[in-house]
Order: sequence, then C-alpha cells, then structure tokens
Amino acid sequence: DEIRAFAKEIVEKEIEKHAADGLGRIDYAVASGGAMVLKHSEPFIRSSKLSRWIAGNVHSGAVKILQPSFGQPGECFPLKGDTGFVDIKLRTAVIPEAITLEHVSKSVAFDRSSAPKDCKVLGWLGSEELTEKMNLLTEFTYDLEKSNAQTFNLVESKTAVDTIRLEFMSNHGSPSHTCIYRVRVHGYEPNLA
Amino acid sequence: DEIRAFAKEIVEKEIEKHAADGLGRIDYAVASGGAMVLKHSEPFIRSSKLSRWIAGNVHSGAVKILQPSFGQPGECFPLKGDTGFVDIKLRTAVIPEAITLEHVSKSVAFDRSSAPKDCKVLGWLGSEELTEKMNLLTEFTYDLEKSNAQTFNLVESKTAVDTIRLEFMSNHGSPSHTCIYRVRVHGYEPNLA
Amino acid sequence: DEIRAFAKEIVEKEIEKHAADGLGRIDYAVASGGAMVLKHSEPFIRSSKLSRWIAGNVHSGAVKILQPSFGQPGECFPLKGDTGFVDIKLRTAVIPEAITLEHVSKSVAFDRSSAPKDCKVLGWLGSEELTEKMNLLTEFTYDLEKSNAQTFNLVESKTAVDTIRLEFMSNHGSPSHTCIYRVRVHGYEPNLA
Ligand SMILES: [K+]
Ligand SMILES: [K+]
Ligand SMILES: [K+]
Repeated sequence: DEIRAFAKEIVEKEIEKHAADGLGRIDYAVASGGAMVLKHSEPFIRSSKLSRWIAGNVHSGAVKILQPSFGQPGECFPLKGDTGFVDIKLRTAVIPEAITLEHVSKSVAFDRSSAPKDCKVLGWLGSEELTEKMNLLTEFTYDLEKSNAQTFNLVESKTAVDTIRLEFMSNHGSPSHTCIYRVRVHGYEPNLA
Repeated sequence: DEIRAFAKEIVEKEIEKHAADGLGRIDYAVASGGAMVLKHSEPFIRSSKLSRWIAGNVHSGAVKILQPSFGQPGECFPLKGDTGFVDIKLRTAVIPEAITLEHVSKSVAFDRSSAPKDCKVLGWLGSEELTEKMNLLTEFTYDLEKSNAQTFNLVESKTAVDTIRLEFMSNHGSPSHTCIYRVRVHGYEPNLA
Repeated sequence: DEIRAFAKEIVEKEIEKHAADGLGRIDYAVASGGAMVLKHSEPFIRSSKLSRWIAGNVHSGAVKILQPSFGQPGECFPLKGDTGFVDIKLRTAVIPEAITLEHVSKSVAFDRSSAPKDCKVLGWLGSEELTEKMNLLTEFTYDLEKSNAQTFNLVESKTAVDTIRLEFMSNHGSPSHTCIYRVRVHGYEPNLA
C-alpha cells in the first residue's frame, strides 16, 4: 500500500508535467501566447497546401514552429537545404535562460535525416536586426539518440531580448531540407523578477 | 518483478485516464459532442483575429471554452472585467452531477491573475431563460494552488437541465479581463439511468 | 530510493510512448505524413457543418480517420448504416504488418453502439482497384471491453501495398451509423529493410 501511494504520486507528477505542454516550463515563444515568426530562410515547398505566403515574407506554415506537434510526423516547418534560420518575436522581452528544440519522436518518424544538427542561438532586443546587437546565446548539437525535446541552457546574462534567431549550420543527412518541429524559449520577465 | 508489474499497472491506468480527455469522465459540454455556447458577457477583444462575431451574439472564440486546451496558454475565451458569465447548451438534457472548471497549468502560465475565482452555476431546461426556472446548482471558488482542472459536485437533484450558466463574481486579480479555458459538465441522461 | 528511480523509469517510458502518438509506432496512414482517404461508403450526415464534399467523392470530414482524436468524442467520421468501408492511400508503399483501429474511450463516450465490430482489411498496390489484386490482410473483431486503440497483426507477406481498405460488416448496435475514429497502418518500407 505504501508502494502504491508512492508510485501513484510519481505517476501523477509526471503526467502533470506531460499535460503541461510536455515540459511544465513557461514558453515565451508559444504562438497561443502571442509570439510569432518574423523571418526565415527559404522554405521547402512540398505541396500547394503549403505554398501560401502571408504578410512580411513569412510563410503561413511557419507558425507550426511555435505550436505543439502532438506526436505527429509532419507537424513541422520545412526549410530548404541543410542550413537556414528562423527569427522568432517572443511574447514579451525576457531574460532568456534556455531554449528547447523538439523534433518528431524516433518511434513514430518516417525519416529523421531532416532533423537540425549543429545550431546557434542569437538574441536581441528591438525589431531592428543590427549585427552588433545580436548576442550569441548558445551553440548546441541536436542529438538524434536523446529525447525528442532537448533543452539547452543559454549563457547567463542580465540582458533582456525579445527576438531569438535559431540558426542551423547542418542537419542529420537530408540534402534537400531541414524540418523544425518546435522551438521554445524559457526565461523570466525582468520586471517580474 | 512484482513491483514492476505493479508500477506498470498504476502507470497504464493513470495514462489511460489522462488520454481520456484528462479526467476519464463524460463531458456533456464538449463541443465535439454537439454542445455550444449560447450567450456570454462582453468579450475582451485583444486582436483583430478574435474580433469576428457569429450568429446569435456569440463570439467566434467562445467555442474554446468547450474544447481541450492541450497545456497551451491562450487557448481560452477572455471576457471583459472581473465579473461575467457564459451560457452553455449541453449536448442533451442531463441530470447534472458535477462541473469542471479548467485554467492553464501554473507551470506554463504567463500570468494567472485572469483566472476566475468565486463562481456560481445555474441550470435550466429549455431555450427560454426565465429567472424562476434557473436553479442554483452550486457555488465554488477556483483555487490557484490546486490542480488546473477542478471538479465541483452539484447539489443533488433529479431535475434534468440542458443549459448551464457559469457566472464568475470575481477573478484572481486582473482588473481588465477573465479567461475561461474550459468548462465541462458531468452527469447522466435520465432516460439511460 | 531504488524503488523511486525504478518507478520513475517506468513512468517516463510509458509517458514517452503515450506522447509518441499513443503507441510509439510508425503510422503509414497518418494524414500529416501524406496519407489520404481515397473513397468511402455513404457518409452519415448529421449537420450542415459536415455536409461539404471535396474532390473525388471524398467527404471533407473523412480525414478525421487519419488524425488524432485527443480523447474527444465526435472526432470521427460517421458512415451510414452498420456496414461500409474506407479506402486509404498510404504515405508510401509498405510491407504491412499490423493495423490499429481506435474508437473513443469508454470513459468519455456518450454511446458506443456506433463502434465498428466485425472488420476485414484488404490491401493492394496501385491506384486501380482490381478484385484479383486486393489481398485479404486480416479479419478481426473490435472489442468494446478492451483498450480503445486495438492493434491487429496482418497475415505475414512480402507483398508491398500502398492502399488499404477497412471494411466493417457489423457494428455494436447502432442501426443508423458507424463511426470511425482512427485507422493506423504499421509496417516497413521494402527498400529500407
Ligand atoms: K509543431
Ligand atoms: K480550451
Ligand atoms: K480522429
């Protein structure tokens, strides 16, 4: 009975985390919270369904990067080639602490060669992109053998940013395209700290 | 091995409940089952995206109250101020037993001051709202410290209702608006009992 | 502490499987992977919302068969009567190994008499339906007492198919209609084996 209560407690805690968007961690890049994709490298168009473009040179499919994937292959935004980037305007300015890059789970994927591999994260404040104002927040490698949602800590800083660039310099083998399933940005609002 | 089998059994049962819409309990207010929002107090319009209105003075965003939220902040219907109401036409007439009010989980919320606090539930049968026919089913307080989906038992009765009003008389601090993530109504169909 | 670590390991594994589309198994019939419904028996139209038809005599609601149901009643495609079929074009040609038929979970269902019961699965290669090329892959009975997603192994074969027909010869009691929540097809791509 003690073990039963004990096991139940662990299960409930883990399911609660799972139900809380998988990580149970605030995501300043989630579309339903007001974040949006500002810009991206050339998309990889596979069908007419994905060929619509919306204002500001942002593809209508780009929002998928900021939405849950529900364990479904294809719930991603495909970019052309094995290098590229996406710029994300966060819900509000935050002191960023970590970034999560999610790909489709190995167990349901048709092919994972389109997963990003070596990545770089830049952040800045303000709508203007100015090379001198874009801070390097981290570099990381997405590992196909680990969990499908991988969280990377950013360099410690007290500088608030409201825009994040995820840049991928390689992928896991596909010469034609790279798929971004979801990007999340964790941190805290300076005025609330 | 015994413990393993035992733990697995608990886990499977809890995940099954989680997969069954979180509670594993029939919801007569779910949109996919045919329920709908009939009426509501003034919405809190934040963007042009939410500014469309549909037939019968019901905002196009109101249906979110009757749909899953998937652990996503923003998957709610925002009403103006700290008092207000929503009227929900159930899928069919039922003897109501409980109501569940869900807000976004603490661990992924940007701000929970917009959560409803002191609430009242009324129920009646028939499309006409007549004060004398609207029965008080319960009063409750949504507690920010508890689980994000909170179920409250209704007063025992044998009276069937097909419309429910959730009225909030206060919220957790926001002067501008109150967000309703999801309302579920549990009970049984009189003819099936 | 040993038990805690042990329980946590089991929980994480089970949640991972749950998060990976419930089964953690590749589905060649998933809509987001490019599969589609090619043809079906007469739909059971309940509302004007479902009355739109799209190209090729495929109802606009038919795609629900190839999408997640999220524990929501109604996230299905209803066909008229207690016999009928759906033809599914898979994402690509595969050696099929198993099929999963999912209905809504007992704990959240309003009525399960519309669940399919005795079923037959046929498979063939090529867009042409030719009786002599349609192989019987299995016959099974969907059991209302078991888990809501039931997987059935197919007869072993080395023949690739790119189209699957799920035919139901009876349901669990509804004279008016039969609801298909989701069909998944598991197997492997011949060129990848
Ligand atoms: K996504
Ligand atoms: K919702
Ligand atoms: K479905």
